[in-house]
Amino acid sequence: MAQAAYYEGNRTIRHGPGELVEPKYGEVTLKISHCGICGTDLHIYHGAMDARVEMPLVMGHEMSANVHQLGAGVENFVIGDKVVVMPLAPCGECPACAAGHSHICHNLDFLGIDTPGAFQSYWTVPAYTLHRMPAHLSLKHGALIEPLAVACHDVRLADVKAGDQVVVLGGGPIGMLVALVARQAGADALVSEINPYRVDLASRLGLDAVNPHETDLTKLVLQRTQGAGADIVFEVSGSQAGATVMTELLRTRGLAVVVAIFAQAPKIDLFRFFWRELRLQGVRVYESEDFSAAIELAARGTLPLDDLVTDIRPLKALQSGFEDMDKGGQVMKILLEL
Amino acid sequence: MAQAAYYEGNRTIRHGPGELVEPKYGEVTLKISHCGICGTDLHIYHGAMDARVEMPLVMGHEMSANVHQLGAGVENFVIGDKVVVMPLAPCGECPACAAGHSHICHNLDFLGIDTPGAFQSYWTVPAYTLHRMPAHLSLKHGALIEPLAVACHDVRLADVKAGDQVVVLGGGPIGMLVALVARQAGADALVSEINPYRVDLASRLGLDAVNPHETDLTKLVLQRTQGAGADIVFEVSGSQAGATVMTELLRTRGLAVVVAIFAQAPKIDLFRFFWRELRLQGVRVYESEDFSAAIELAARGTLPLDDLVTDIRPLKALQSGFEDMDKGGQVMKILLEL
Repeated sequence: MAQAAYYEGNRTIRHGPGELVEPKYGEVTLKISHCGICGTDLHIYHGAMDARVEMPLVMGHEMSANVHQLGAGVENFVIGDKVVVMPLAPCGECPACAAGHSHICHNLDFLGIDTPGAFQSYWTVPAYTLHRMPAHLSLKHGALIEPLAVACHDVRLADVKAGDQVVVLGGGPIGMLVALVARQAGADALVSEINPYRVDLASRLGLDAVNPHETDLTKLVLQRTQGAGADIVFEVSGSQAGATVMTELLRTRGLAVVVAIFAQAPKIDLFRFFWRELRLQGVRVYESEDFSAAIELAARGTLPLDDLVTDIRPLKALQSGFEDMDKGGQVMKILLEL
Repeated sequence: MAQAAYYEGNRTIRHGPGELVEPKYGEVTLKISHCGICGTDLHIYHGAMDARVEMPLVMGHEMSANVHQLGAGVENFVIGDKVVVMPLAPCGECPACAAGHSHICHNLDFLGIDTPGAFQSYWTVPAYTLHRMPAHLSLKHGALIEPLAVACHDVRLADVKAGDQVVVLGGGPIGMLVALVARQAGADALVSEINPYRVDLASRLGLDAVNPHETDLTKLVLQRTQGAGADIVFEVSGSQAGATVMTELLRTRGLAVVVAIFAQAPKIDLFRFFWRELRLQGVRVYESEDFSAAIELAARGTLPLDDLVTDIRPLKALQSGFEDMDKGGQVMKILLEL
């Protein structure tokens, strides 16, 4: 029986019957296997994006699926294929698309935010959004490809190199994945995180991790770099504290990467940017090559993906998942299994 | 008779007899011809750097000179050579120097700030700071090489290309030179400046210039770029208004270049950096190749350097020069002639 989870505003998720939307030309209908809860979903649940979203909304975009039905004109997939979706539908006509930056199209539709998402049994999407999974990559791990692609994009745009000293401010799922991908690239990654559970988890993942409320982060980074400072700092905390410390940590010409979504404009030490010729780069979502890289990396089996999944619940537990994330305690990534 | 101008604190310049400091090994004594007044000199005159400078201080670093006397071990220059000084003395040992960024050495001595400068008849400096001027480049224009080298550095680090849409926020001497150098690189440069005299001057220099109090700058830039936004914005105003508008003006993946010295940390729209994958780059002083480029560019004779020089005064008029700059009216670059 097809099911779906509907956001109806006011921190309310209704679990109910789902639909199968017939695939049109160039579309594919997927049978969803797993779908993770993203921080953006939580943000929507909080009502922070009520002006943008149409309710009732089926959220969800960190997913894995099997191809269930093919629309006309779709030739590269067959029924049963294991796939993930890169949930971006660009307009193809705006200046960003014209400049080759369609992933940050001025009129971008984000599937699962601006159109229905994957917290439902059957999801119909444009075939161009699909990436095929290798046979030996599990559908559970497949649901981590989307956030992993974010990390691959961030590390790629930051041009992380072997031997780089990297600091990640904020050890949530994206921060952890950025640190893990940077380490795969040969960097020396340090995670700064104030939640003790997440500091412990980072250590279990083999990452260096500290709580900046307990350790003088700037002093530590200068010690680790013989006074030079870090090559790259990923700001994933979205906090004024993170925005302040990032400029203190960087070496001359070092790079601050803004991964977090800052709801308020923080104060930034532009004098320090001048003084040390620092650089800053905003990064958002991913491009197709990042999805391919994420799949390849997950399939390699060297990332501790299982340790990032706090638990797996049925779709009807979406509301309790949000509630547990709000408690801010011992959760990292929650997956829903359909 | 040797003369010098001494900053004695409390907005006071004393004009008096100068000294000739005998050049030591590897040093050269110069006979100063012209020396411009820099915004940093004004800042020192205001007392804002009293904690850093030793008084009485001979300021001045935008200069031209003839070689007057050679210390032992100096082989590449002869008495009478027309030269300019790149006024940076790096330590050679810090992490910035080790990384090849000696121009922003952690322990940098800036000649004319941390050690005596060129507002005096005879200036003794390390020979490695000298750049030779071509014979046909005037000593008057030579005094503009240092600020021109700043502009060459900024445009080089911004990687300005032919056809780029460039906006310069702030039309003081550095802003004007940045716009002129960007135009030489083939860019389409627009200057935004609130001082009407400077807006007019920019127009006389052949630059597009607007007063953002009279023109909606964001709307204008979007019109000029078919809705895409500017490729590069140079922030040379040091104001919150500039820091705010720079993120509104840029295209996806556009670059904000922080040239100005921000005494206070402004609020920066990091959401916009994320949303459009914007980049930011701090730039400070110059490297040797920028001095060479500035000399080559000035010698080419295509820049309207004469129009940037508001007037030329004797050294004893330094105090009145600062006072006129403080009035903020009809001044651009004031040169002192020794």
